[in-house]
Amino acid sequence: MKQKLVVIGGVASGTKTAAKAIRENPDLEITVLTEEDYISYAGCGLPYYIGNVIKEKKHLTVMNPEKFKEKDITVLLHTRAEKIIPGEKKVIAKDMVSGEVKEFPYDKLVLATGAKPIVPPIPGIELKNVFTLRTVTDAVKIRDAVEKEGIKKAVVVGGGFIGLEVAENLTLQGVKVTLVELLDQILPNFDKEIALLAEKHIKEKGVNVYTSEKAVSIEGKDGRATALVTDKRKIEADLVLLSVGVKPNTQLAADAGVELGVKGAIKVNENMETNIHDIYAVGDCAENINLVTGKPAWFPMGSTANKMGRVAALNLYPKGEKESLAGVLGTTVVKLFDINAARTGLSERDARNEGYNIVTVLVPASDRAHYYPGAKNIITKLIVDRTTHRLLGAQIIGEGVVDKPIDIAATVITLRGTVEDMAKLDLAYAPPFSSAMSTTIVAANVAQNKLLGKIDGISPLELERKLSDSQLQIIDVREEAEYVVGSIPGAKNIPLKEIKKRAAEIDRDKETIVVCKIGLRAYLGYLALKSLGVKNLKILDGGVTAWPFKLE
Amino acid sequence: MKQKLVVIGGVASGTKTAAKAIRENPDLEITVLTEEDYISYAGCGLPYYIGNVIKEKKHLTVMNPEKFKEKDITVLLHTRAEKIIPGEKKVIAKDMVSGEVKEFPYDKLVLATGAKPIVPPIPGIELKNVFTLRTVTDAVKIRDAVEKEGIKKAVVVGGGFIGLEVAENLTLQGVKVTLVELLDQILPNFDKEIALLAEKHIKEKGVNVYTSEKAVSIEGKDGRATALVTDKRKIEADLVLLSVGVKPNTQLAADAGVELGVKGAIKVNENMETNIHDIYAVGDCAENINLVTGKPAWFPMGSTANKMGRVAALNLYPKGEKESLAGVLGTTVVKLFDINAARTGLSERDARNEGYNIVTVLVPASDRAHYYPGAKNIITKLIVDRTTHRLLGAQIIGEGVVDKPIDIAATVITLRGTVEDMAKLDLAYAPPFSSAMSTTIVAANVAQNKLLGKIDGISPLELERKLSDSQLQIIDVREEAEYVVGSIPGAKNIPLKEIKKRAAEIDRDKETIVVCKIGLRAYLGYLALKSLGVKNLKILDGGVTAWPFKLE
Repeated sequence: MKQKLVVIGGVASGTKTAAKAIRENPDLEITVLTEEDYISYAGCGLPYYIGNVIKEKKHLTVMNPEKFKEKDITVLLHTRAEKIIPGEKKVIAKDMVSGEVKEFPYDKLVLATGAKPIVPPIPGIELKNVFTLRTVTDAVKIRDAVEKEGIKKAVVVGGGFIGLEVAENLTLQGVKVTLVELLDQILPNFDKEIALLAEKHIKEKGVNVYTSEKAVSIEGKDGRATALVTDKRKIEADLVLLSVGVKPNTQLAADAGVELGVKGAIKVNENMETNIHDIYAVGDCAENINLVTGKPAWFPMGSTANKMGRVAALNLYPKGEKESLAGVLGTTVVKLFDINAARTGLSERDARNEGYNIVTVLVPASDRAHYYPGAKNIITKLIVDRTTHRLLGAQIIGEGVVDKPIDIAATVITLRGTVEDMAKLDLAYAPPFSSAMSTTIVAANVAQNKLLGKIDGISPLELERKLSDSQLQIIDVREEAEYVVGSIPGAKNIPLKEIKKRAAEIDRDKETIVVCKIGLRAYLGYLALKSLGVKNLKILDGGVTAWPFKLE
Repeated sequence: MKQKLVVIGGVASGTKTAAKAIRENPDLEITVLTEEDYISYAGCGLPYYIGNVIKEKKHLTVMNPEKFKEKDITVLLHTRAEKIIPGEKKVIAKDMVSGEVKEFPYDKLVLATGAKPIVPPIPGIELKNVFTLRTVTDAVKIRDAVEKEGIKKAVVVGGGFIGLEVAENLTLQGVKVTLVELLDQILPNFDKEIALLAEKHIKEKGVNVYTSEKAVSIEGKDGRATALVTDKRKIEADLVLLSVGVKPNTQLAADAGVELGVKGAIKVNENMETNIHDIYAVGDCAENINLVTGKPAWFPMGSTANKMGRVAALNLYPKGEKESLAGVLGTTVVKLFDINAARTGLSERDARNEGYNIVTVLVPASDRAHYYPGAKNIITKLIVDRTTHRLLGAQIIGEGVVDKPIDIAATVITLRGTVEDMAKLDLAYAPPFSSAMSTTIVAANVAQNKLLGKIDGISPLELERKLSDSQLQIIDVREEAEYVVGSIPGAKNIPLKEIKKRAAEIDRDKETIVVCKIGLRAYLGYLALKSLGVKNLKILDGGVTAWPFKLE
């Protein structure tokens, strides 16, 4: 008799597991159960469907049950798994259309139940035009509302990736968007100075942003949403998107005795096996390991889901050594209007919380040869272990290309490279693609300078907290013409060339911060001031370019 | 008395060394000698100046002696170093304008004499409008000829990067270009199937390409070039660019007793020290180590030049451990009209010559989510060590982004990663930037399948050589509608779904090649045919997409 594989869940990891499993074991009888209307759809593309960047729904839903049938895989839509009975190796599921309840016996069971949006328990969430976004059906409803009901104003609650991408796409559709975030920054996985730069940009693009603000209720009229009320104000809105986060969809698993881990995600080992024999878990419902710390974590990502699906499929009936996924880095990238932001590994905050003794750098540089048309700046932040010099994390933001350098950083972290390794990488150079000294290498060189004590830096956040300190002097070493356009509040302008001549104007006993546009002239100014005997001396990391606060 | 540093050469590595040296040792007295008219110019940008992509000369020549003076560095233009006397620690140089000969005593000497174009010894090279391209002055002359003399037809001799980039840029200027290459392929550092794809593209863009053809002479009239004569034909041309390669400019060094290595480049250790104490060499005049083989090599690249300059500068007066550059990978990237091509590490040919037992893959895939606007295909070739599974090299070509995946590959090779490591990288995913399964990961997965013996492949080059073999059958498993548009010569169409049904049409004793568009359906067809008992079975690597020859 044929071995039976049942997969619960039909988006990324579930269908990946099924497709790979049948290639590995052509005799397997595979059934995929999903309560949704679509399978294998492009979950990460949904915001772009709302914005009409992706024109047609069919582009999001390339696969269907018929196409899986051709691969000898049975997919049952509208079929909700209601109970798993591990002792009898069967799943009880209900056809949501006919109401019929069926049993699905299995030899191997793969849980790919994904995650679901967290809905904040506030009054008004039942009103029309209040949405969450997780499925194709959700996206279609939102776009229909925008295009057919003439939505003018929207509020997005939550400043994570989905919230931000929807804010952008609604704006592209001509909707005035206000974004409300409970935390004191958008992009919660990024360090604050990077998040502030992103916030500045989306505000320039016309999105209202309110951070440290709590959604309290949604008001409506005739059953339709009319406003979001926060703890600070009332914001008129014809449409409200609740995008405050997701949680793993694991009640079914938990009820069956499957062990849960971080944030309620299913505990799996690196072979995607759960605590119950012959039950595997993959995708957004399953836990990961943070490759840097070695600790359990939860990073629900489509890219990871695919890898997990492949690993699980190979381990159902392993030939030889089992396949494994040691862990992930939480690498992510997001486009926000004209800028891009990406991260990998530990943030500065993560690293400090984990007890690492770290050095950070913040380095603006051009993503390709400055003289080549289309060259744009990016700002690279590196988080480096002071003891081992290993790269622990990176965050990159700017109008230029960020996905390339973040992927290089992710590769360095995965292979446990140091900043010295990074600085010597032989990366591809030609003017249309890179500078001769790529941003990655420049940032690694600055990190080396800091590690060797050649230079000391202060982060924009730290400097901003100290601005009112009278024992602090800030020297802006740019030319006067640059200085007058805008500088750090309280900074005194002494152009680099004039430092020696104007030495008398500098108080050698004060803590001194040297500022320039990106950090290079500040480095030279630092050396000059050091030779003049200034002792408590730092440069402003990232210079005026990476300063996320107001200039004066 | 101040220590004296003399640098000979003022383009990338020479000026980098000087600028870094003064930061490290502010008291150093630095003199840079160059016989050229410009310093620190963008050598790699010159083809784009010819094409008017870079509009103005000033964008190529941002630095000048005055700006170096501000850094306390003396730069002497038009000053040719004529002799080095290591015993007396001095350089004899001649001012090419005044004719004056001067002595420059040094404590440390850095050789950054670069490379110079090889001029083939053929009749007619002295004619007007016969050029080489290495300096800003060369580029200005060529663009002036094109824009002011109404050049209509040009011949480029040499199909390396510079030749190809100039061919593109002349075409953009409305010039009809013919490219003549002595070897049997353009892009000599790439494997032939990749080079053939590039050749196909530039031909589509209007460039005539003749490979395996030797330039014999240049004909002229009234002192101006009128045609290039090859061993096969005569090609009319108002302009001839000789771009057959470069050689290190090291006669001066050799005369002083500095030891030379590979291809006449100056032998240096990883600290950029030559065999003579206090003499260093950096940039295109100096040798490198191939990081994969550990053997000396010569990869003249602007990116490497900058790293070497930094290393030399730090080692003039080392504080603590010496800085080193262990080696490079020969990573390069080139834009050719609408496609991009990149390479790193060993080519398949290099790897076989070095005696590696290798596996290669050729994998077409989309550079971002297929449904996101602007998604484009690239073809990834990996060269993998069968014994250790380590990545040895990669080559990528296509309309999509190639510099990102080649940089990831370069990082994996540098940190001695395997394809298993590569397949598990947590790379940044969002639809505007990548597919959920990035091209890099897909290619690494295919390599794993090959290493595990799950599938066997044949390269396009190998299949093309065998096409007339009567013991070979080629099965194209695509749909009929795809097959009729064009397939491999002699291929029989049996769509994937029909394989079982039409098993009788398949000769189980013949060597069988399974073909599809990119390789995925061929993999499924391979499994189906294997289960039917076909033994001598392979898929065509890269499918019809990567087939660089004519389709039928």
